[in-house]
Amino acid sequence: MVGPSRFMTLLSCFELGLVDRIREHPGLTAAELGEAVGATPDAVEQLLLLLVKERFVTYDEESGGYAPDALAAVDEKDLKRALAYMNMIKVVALRQLFHLTESARTGTLVGLRELYGVTGGTLYGAVAEHPDLRDAWANLMNTVTAHIDPWFFGNVGIPAGARVLDLAGNTGLGAIHTVTHKASPGLRVTTFDLPEKEAEALANFRSHGVAEQCSFLGGDVFDGVPRGFDTVLIKHFLDMFDKGDVVRILRGVNEALETGGQVHIMVPVYPEDITDTDNYNVDFFPAFFIGCTMGQGGPQKLSVYQSWLEECGFKVTKTLTKSAAEVPPDVIPVQAILSATKVARPGPLGSH
Amino acid sequence: MVGPSRFMTLLSCFELGLVDRIREHPGLTAAELGEAVGATPDAVEQLLLLLVKERFVTYDEESGGYAPDALAAVDEKDLKRALAYMNMIKVVALRQLFHLTESARTGTLVGLRELYGVTGGTLYGAVAEHPDLRDAWANLMNTVTAHIDPWFFGNVGIPAGARVLDLAGNTGLGAIHTVTHKASPGLRVTTFDLPEKEAEALANFRSHGVAEQCSFLGGDVFDGVPRGFDTVLIKHFLDMFDKGDVVRILRGVNEALETGGQVHIMVPVYPEDITDTDNYNVDFFPAFFIGCTMGQGGPQKLSVYQSWLEECGFKVTKTLTKSAAEVPPDVIPVQAILSATKVARPGPLGSH
Repeated sequence: MVGPSRFMTLLSCFELGLVDRIREHPGLTAAELGEAVGATPDAVEQLLLLLVKERFVTYDEESGGYAPDALAAVDEKDLKRALAYMNMIKVVALRQLFHLTESARTGTLVGLRELYGVTGGTLYGAVAEHPDLRDAWANLMNTVTAHIDPWFFGNVGIPAGARVLDLAGNTGLGAIHTVTHKASPGLRVTTFDLPEKEAEALANFRSHGVAEQCSFLGGDVFDGVPRGFDTVLIKHFLDMFDKGDVVRILRGVNEALETGGQVHIMVPVYPEDITDTDNYNVDFFPAFFIGCTMGQGGPQKLSVYQSWLEECGFKVTKTLTKSAAEVPPDVIPVQAILSATKVARPGPLGSH
Repeated sequence: MVGPSRFMTLLSCFELGLVDRIREHPGLTAAELGEAVGATPDAVEQLLLLLVKERFVTYDEESGGYAPDALAAVDEKDLKRALAYMNMIKVVALRQLFHLTESARTGTLVGLRELYGVTGGTLYGAVAEHPDLRDAWANLMNTVTAHIDPWFFGNVGIPAGARVLDLAGNTGLGAIHTVTHKASPGLRVTTFDLPEKEAEALANFRSHGVAEQCSFLGGDVFDGVPRGFDTVLIKHFLDMFDKGDVVRILRGVNEALETGGQVHIMVPVYPEDITDTDNYNVDFFPAFFIGCTMGQGGPQKLSVYQSWLEECGFKVTKTLTKSAAEVPPDVIPVQAILSATKVARPGPLGSH
């Protein structure tokens, strides 16, 4: 019940500048802080109570001064990342969630329609039109991709000289990272995404000096997956869809590959034991995907993705879940990698 | 970070009718539940993950069926009360909180302005104009008052034949309860509130058969408190204001009373130890008052109210905080009673 008010009270203490001031000048009183940030001492006192409760700051009854407690030990860059998350949740989710029930009933983003007049689309379309959504989203996503791609490429094998397709590769960042992290003679990477991403992708390839190794192919994954590749990457994508669409995507990839072709998937996963109280993914993603970004979708357990891959003609060769110890506590998604190989189908006469 | 999504995921499972169906027909699958409530099986499965995590419901991997777990033991009336709280928070707070920082800076309800075009007023004014706010608010408040007034009247002494003023008594419910719970020959109770409440208050007195003992006086507490009373009740009111206004109210009451006159206050209080993790009042009220209902205000510790009473010429004779054990876990406010007596002022010559 107090989830929304806890969330905004904490974020507001940052937005008002209270946290920065307490970190810079320990000992300021509510009156001094109020004057500095443009709020009444009463409001400052009320909002900081939660931070005292949670031992983020201390309050000295004698002097009336506030000082950093747990917040003293937090690095500026960690704070910035946590705030990028909180701001994204505020801008993309807080108000939209009001309409979650209707979004679940209709499979559409009722919140985006009510707040932005967006009908029938997804958040990923809306960010192109609405700078506030885009800023909140891009600010977070750039941080996330920068942190997680090195881990992904450190844990998948891409043969020298491979022809790689980055499925739903957006404006080419994944292709660029592939070339950077998995350089080999003859390696070629193609970003496959909607045609409107082409110009920006090509510009990105040029500015990163990888225009020779990288190319762009326009299309929609639900109309078919291009052939002629031996490795397909699917990063940050499958969790956006319900099972029916995930299976369509995986079958499409399977059809496009030769036997022995490989797929490497990176996707957030739920814990195998859903009742795990240290994992906050089920607290966040269902409502976020259904109510705020897609009107459907949400991650699955690793074992579920594995069984879906097998349903679609793959043999899973490697799975790896990022350990909680490697992830800062403010990062919600728990990412996993699944690598799989297309297996030969039994011939029409059961020939093997 | 996951507070808003946890809140709406849980509420959405109720709103969709998933919880009712699982309670009525244990063992239904996501497909069956989806058909019953008009949502995809995928969305049902995603949203129920949180309830499985929190052990509200169980999920059987073999059959795919859901059954009540902790929810099995919860009474229908307890569920209804919890849902009245959650619905109020959704309607009155969830979206408005987006604007908390700006509300704190301006001391106005930016959320109400953005969503309802209400400028310069409070939630209590807005509920008169907006049925969705009113329904969510009244539905909760009626439950709260019905539960808490018997406790209040069981713990304050009102002398036989007293002339009682119910300050900011709204449409007369407190006056009616006074007559019901503290009946004595000659007892008279006057509801004091804004003049526009008079007609409804008088109608309430008549319909409860207490028109002879109860009357209404129109006015604004900040313009002065009426004289001629020996007992003043201040229920559900002081927490709406910053210290400056609370002190104005208490001084006004003090001036209106004769020495020996009594005031009985009921108000939610913060724990004396703010770091108490079992108490959720600081998680909720600052943001709720500043961002959603008043643009200012919020409860204080009991000791703070006590010191303010003493600052305003009262001697506190009794304090009582409702024990957590008596309060259902879904009820956020921890109410306290403060009884106080007006003390004689030192005369101009320091005569005592």
